Amino acid sequence: MSDVTAPTPSRTRLTPDERRSQLLDLGVQLLATRSLEELSIDLLAEQAGISRGLLYHYFGGKQGFYEAVVQRAADDLYAQTAPPDEGEPLERLLVSLAGYVDYVVTNAAGYRSLVKAASGSNDNLRAIYETTFAALADRFFTADPGGMVLQDTPAVRLVIHAWQAMVEDLVLTWCDDPAGLTRDDLLHLVTGSLPTLVDLLP
Amino acid sequence: MSDVTAPTPSRTRLTPDERRSQLLDLGVQLLATRSLEELSIDLLAEQAGISRGLLYHYFGGKQGFYEAVVQRAADDLYAQTAPPDEGEPLERLLVSLAGYVDYVVTNAAGYRSLVKAASGSNDNLRAIYETTFAALADRFFTADPGGMVLQDTPAVRLVIHAWQAMVEDLVLTWCDDPAGLTRDDLLHLVTGSLPTLVDLLP
Repeated sequence: MSDVTAPTPSRTRLTPDERRSQLLDLGVQLLATRSLEELSIDLLAEQAGISRGLLYHYFGGKQGFYEAVVQRAADDLYAQTAPPDEGEPLERLLVSLAGYVDYVVTNAAGYRSLVKAASGSNDNLRAIYETTFAALADRFFTADPGGMVLQDTPAVRLVIHAWQAMVEDLVLTWCDDPAGLTRDDLLHLVTGSLPTLVDLLP
Repeated sequence: MSDVTAPTPSRTRLTPDERRSQLLDLGVQLLATRSLEELSIDLLAEQAGISRGLLYHYFGGKQGFYEAVVQRAADDLYAQTAPPDEGEPLERLLVSLAGYVDYVVTNAAGYRSLVKAASGSNDNLRAIYETTFAALADRFFTADPGGMVLQDTPAVRLVIHAWQAMVEDLVLTWCDDPAGLTRDDLLHLVTGSLPTLVDLLP
């Protein structure tokens, strides 16, 4: 009781949308160190300093909250890896890939919540992951409609899918132990690997 | 009741070890179309034509059965991808990689049970997966102690780990939809990708 403080002024001034967004941020943070199953509404309400009832009001229940948290992580990833509006296709894609690496490195907690969602038994959560990575793969073609960088063929799509799995593992493992590689070394692996993989196609 | 048959002679002649092995094979098959959570001891007992009690006798419970099934899939994978005893390191490793592709293609059900195990919340199951893939990675160095193919460095280990994630995704996705690629095209991607990835290291 030595550190009693008044409620912060910012809390009372939040709009419902701001409050909802704040709760999602908190959910992403809490997922950094526990699985979705371990993240209880009770814990979240306690950490947020609000009632269970208000949490249900915002998200319609525990499942709705989980899905909103994972969707938040997915939306963040997609937005923060958007290619620039201008430039050559290759340059725009390289900026997007650098955005991916930097997003995962600086938001590892949120990113891991997305990866966990993909591997659980909840179909809605898995769909969020799969839809997000399909949208990221599509950027290779929407940012390069002329096929200057990669041709849009089933075999190239197969390679991109597998390359995404590799990049995800690479960046997350690097976050835990860089193995002597700098961020630029890592980015060189990420960007250099896709064309060399496509070159191995018949 | 129109298809009543006597117990097959083979059933009565099985030793306990053979019976246990047969139950594991059945478990791997049943996991092809359902998650570990959905595979009940009741279903397994029914399919095997034995009592729940005998299943508990063999595996000490549902959890023990799950772990034994996943360990069986892992052991099968490791054994069937063993490099030949003789030959140059590169040739031995290429035979091992071809063994991996062919194992996944012909045992997709068992392999998927291993992958599912890696992504669940059960630590024992995840450990089986991780131990198996660490052992597969070690082969690059035990089959090539002179480092003729790959040098054993932390950065190369990081790349092998990510490459394993890519190869797993590549082969499983190819099993669902070959995207115009033959088994040899797939193998060329698998074997050709690792040296090109290592070449991207500083």
